[in-house]
Amino acid sequence: MGDAKQRIIVDWGTSSFRAYRFGADGEIMEQHQAASGILTVTDGDFEAALEREIGPWLTPQTEVLLSGMITSRNGWIETPYVEAPATLAQLAAGAREITAKNRMLLRFLPGVCVKGASPDVMRGEEIQVFGSVGPLESATVVLPGTHSKWVRVQAGVLHDFKSFMTGEVFAALKAHTILGRLIPEGSATDDAAFNAGVRQALNPASAGLLNDIFTTRSGVLLNRFPPEEIAERLSGIVIGHEIRGGLALGWAEGLIRVVGEPGLTRRYLLALRTAGMRAEAGPENAAVAGFRRLGAV
Amino acid sequence: MGDAKQRIIVDWGTSSFRAYRFGADGEIMEQHQAASGILTVTDGDFEAALEREIGPWLTPQTEVLLSGMITSRNGWIETPYVEAPATLAQLAAGAREITAKNRMLLRFLPGVCVKGASPDVMRGEEIQVFGSVGPLESATVVLPGTHSKWVRVQAGVLHDFKSFMTGEVFAALKAHTILGRLIPEGSATDDAAFNAGVRQALNPASAGLLNDIFTTRSGVLLNRFPPEEIAERLSGIVIGHEIRGGLALGWAEGLIRVVGEPGLTRRYLLALRTAGMRAEAGPENAAVAGFRRLGAV
Repeated sequence: MGDAKQRIIVDWGTSSFRAYRFGADGEIMEQHQAASGILTVTDGDFEAALEREIGPWLTPQTEVLLSGMITSRNGWIETPYVEAPATLAQLAAGAREITAKNRMLLRFLPGVCVKGASPDVMRGEEIQVFGSVGPLESATVVLPGTHSKWVRVQAGVLHDFKSFMTGEVFAALKAHTILGRLIPEGSATDDAAFNAGVRQALNPASAGLLNDIFTTRSGVLLNRFPPEEIAERLSGIVIGHEIRGGLALGWAEGLIRVVGEPGLTRRYLLALRTAGMRAEAGPENAAVAGFRRLGAV
Repeated sequence: MGDAKQRIIVDWGTSSFRAYRFGADGEIMEQHQAASGILTVTDGDFEAALEREIGPWLTPQTEVLLSGMITSRNGWIETPYVEAPATLAQLAAGAREITAKNRMLLRFLPGVCVKGASPDVMRGEEIQVFGSVGPLESATVVLPGTHSKWVRVQAGVLHDFKSFMTGEVFAALKAHTILGRLIPEGSATDDAAFNAGVRQALNPASAGLLNDIFTTRSGVLLNRFPPEEIAERLSGIVIGHEIRGGLALGWAEGLIRVVGEPGLTRRYLLALRTAGMRAEAGPENAAVAGFRRLGAV
């Protein structure tokens, strides 16, 4: 709008890179996604890595806003955590700016922490949360993934949250335990087996995650179900235990909004409804919506 | 005993091999342990593997009694499962015999299963259970390990049990997740940090294992405790959740007997006492005691 600045936002996580270039009226002109998470930048030269991903977008007039693990101790610039309850304005105020070699401006958003009896941290999800709720709305937002987050928003303020290592534990169980060795190659998606796992985890008689996962093995050995069901049952059990823990927080009296990649969102909606909850998918691109609310684009 | 037979027992598991040679009066003459679990026998020639471990003990007069994963689908001879409630006599009756090339007799013990709403299996632990309780005793026996077992014995009968993937999950978390990457080399044993993890898992406000393990990371990032405590806290959290699940079974109204390797037994006794339970160590060599009760030696 009479402003020659090129606005770019980058959501740069542990294992993924997502960037958007905006036009003068805030519309998305270009986007770029890659598996170039911060773990792939082994020499620590993040400026060169950014150049590799979106070099043609970068000029001295560019303003880049970054969030995610790129703002962590293992990233480019470590920003502090804003302590919850946190507002969008506090996120903006906590950003750190640097000028790159080519004179473009880089702004790194802070993360959010809770310091109660059970400390927790996030970096990157907060902008998706603000992008998926209205300015005065109260909601429970679930962001499934490697480290799933359950977030309590009250009257537009990010009030409290908990992380669950669901995705990473599932991956480790599949790749590095006896359970994974029993899974046949090319096991298909199977909602019935997935839901059986969810129900097992939610059963009040469950002896906990450590026992439930073992039954995917004993069930096969005792011919209760075929090995083709192990992966889906295991996924249902792990996600089901996340939901069990999340519901025990007492935050989700009403509607739960699930914000994530479409395939995973579908599974969480299925599991939450199996748990008897009302659940809906959040906006497709919550991060961009959050950056818009921040006034960045 | 007027009997020229050489009696040998072999407890051959997934990752370990233990053998004992007995004299005519049932005393242990020799023992041999190695990390030669069935997974190391990649060519399936278990007779050659047995020869490599204890060849000098083996003659045509030898009788070898085997238990553990060597009796499973992935072992030498697959024996059926005896369904719980199971007695020692049923174990003996379910054994399968073969004659080896050198004419010695091999007897493979069965495993035990439960087929209720939550199916479970064991192979090898059952003989330790019978070796750690009296013929008419009632007790809850806990066998910590890769796949920990909680076993309910009533009036000398193995009535029910549940497996917990505690050891294998802890190893996978340490070796294959972000938590492991934060653990400094050479972290020392630390009972206080271990117990803090146990208490966290047992806290009624816990949001479950998937959240509790993540706090070992966020606690370090927020300077609650040093990274040197991560491994012990994590161990306490995982063992604590096993105990939480085990206690929820309602089997352990009285004394809990812990049967396992001394270092692990010490940790479980510590954790069970932190949980307010009465707990004691079982006999040092429960498997040999079980084989004795079976009349095998």
